[in-house]
Amino acid sequence: MPNPTAAMLVIGDEILSGRTREANAYHLAGELTRVGIDLKEIRVVPDEHEVIVDSLNALRAGFTHVFTSGGIGPTHDDITADAVAAAFGVGIDVRDDARELLEAALAGRGLTPTADQLRMARIPDGATLIVNGVSGAPGFSIGNVHVMAGVPSIFVAMVETVLPTLEAGAPRLSREVRFEVGEGLIAAPLRELADAMPELSFGSYPFREGEIRGTNIVVRGTEPALLDDAVARLETIRNGTPPSA
Amino acid sequence: MPNPTAAMLVIGDEILSGRTREANAYHLAGELTRVGIDLKEIRVVPDEHEVIVDSLNALRAGFTHVFTSGGIGPTHDDITADAVAAAFGVGIDVRDDARELLEAALAGRGLTPTADQLRMARIPDGATLIVNGVSGAPGFSIGNVHVMAGVPSIFVAMVETVLPTLEAGAPRLSREVRFEVGEGLIAAPLRELADAMPELSFGSYPFREGEIRGTNIVVRGTEPALLDDAVARLETIRNGTPPSA
Repeated sequence: MPNPTAAMLVIGDEILSGRTREANAYHLAGELTRVGIDLKEIRVVPDEHEVIVDSLNALRAGFTHVFTSGGIGPTHDDITADAVAAAFGVGIDVRDDARELLEAALAGRGLTPTADQLRMARIPDGATLIVNGVSGAPGFSIGNVHVMAGVPSIFVAMVETVLPTLEAGAPRLSREVRFEVGEGLIAAPLRELADAMPELSFGSYPFREGEIRGTNIVVRGTEPALLDDAVARLETIRNGTPPSA
Repeated sequence: MPNPTAAMLVIGDEILSGRTREANAYHLAGELTRVGIDLKEIRVVPDEHEVIVDSLNALRAGFTHVFTSGGIGPTHDDITADAVAAAFGVGIDVRDDARELLEAALAGRGLTPTADQLRMARIPDGATLIVNGVSGAPGFSIGNVHVMAGVPSIFVAMVETVLPTLEAGAPRLSREVRFEVGEGLIAAPLRELADAMPELSFGSYPFREGEIRGTNIVVRGTEPALLDDAVARLETIRNGTPPSA
């Protein structure tokens, strides 16, 4: 049975303008690989309602899960929750359970929510909250869409909450073999090996360390025995490759 | 006149599997902002022919420019050039000028190209080479699509070659004002200001430094005088905001 698939939708002008280096995709990619959900697309879009709605609808139709990051804070540029409600054609309003979480978190600092902070308790009808230990403001899941914060520490906490609730696939395993030759010199046997083992994927990643031009070959698959076999065959190729630049 | 727009298409299983942290989008975003081309989408897709072709066709129809990163090396998983040719419906073959660049670079190391290395001289019909000082293997531009390497040092060199050839827009300027209060407490006046100055975009980015909960407000636009005005109004808001968490 093929693994569940996923897309990530990152929402934020600050990534597209070059102000902020996107920080959540790498974490999510690693976690999804670990649990056997295949991440197939990452898309970064601006803080624009129609673009978010259209992207959400395209991605949720195309993949088992969609994970979003960003745009669920209290300010005017936080429009993700409304866009999600619009994409699903449902209403959205402040919800008691979300408000209570916010109030409890602020009470710890001797505060009560402002009207704008209460915006963070606006939850689309039918959604499930993503409670987390870092932020009082929850994320939420609706249908196959999981809506999470852009602040990295909160994003990580929300991923930790959500992933155990999803049906896992076969964890995607990987093995790596290092060649100290440029990739042009091993491309031919590598291509033959990739053709001979279609259940696995072979990636070729050149590197340079001082005078060494090298290539890391990464094999990915779900069957440990097949991966062992591939690594053995790669080592045979390596032993037969003339040392050269 | 609105600025030219752009999308970036990152091609590579290694990003989606979490093996590699994507490193080129942040650089490209900053460079495009500098020259006044508005980056509107970043999309990361796997090494799959149909997905690359479909993404390319969607993005090149939607934006003034498309910049790609990855998949133009010599190995079996480098399929970008063929996908670009397929997207444009043109042929692709080893081209003399590209082969000469490759041969010259390898000759410096006492080598001649292998058959696989020659794959890097396969250029879609009608494309213009993106020559660069780091790699003998060129990128290329065809129509509004600019095809570049995934290796960061080569990507940077290729961006440096391509950008001066494109029509620039009005550089997108930004100014930043730091508030030492959480964003919930300034959301209301910020929303009023954003409504009052629709030519500008206002982003709100919370941060935490030890015990300080703060918010950086970033204003973006193309008119320096308007930005000065916005900064002055933000400073007025700041002076009127009660010091609080």
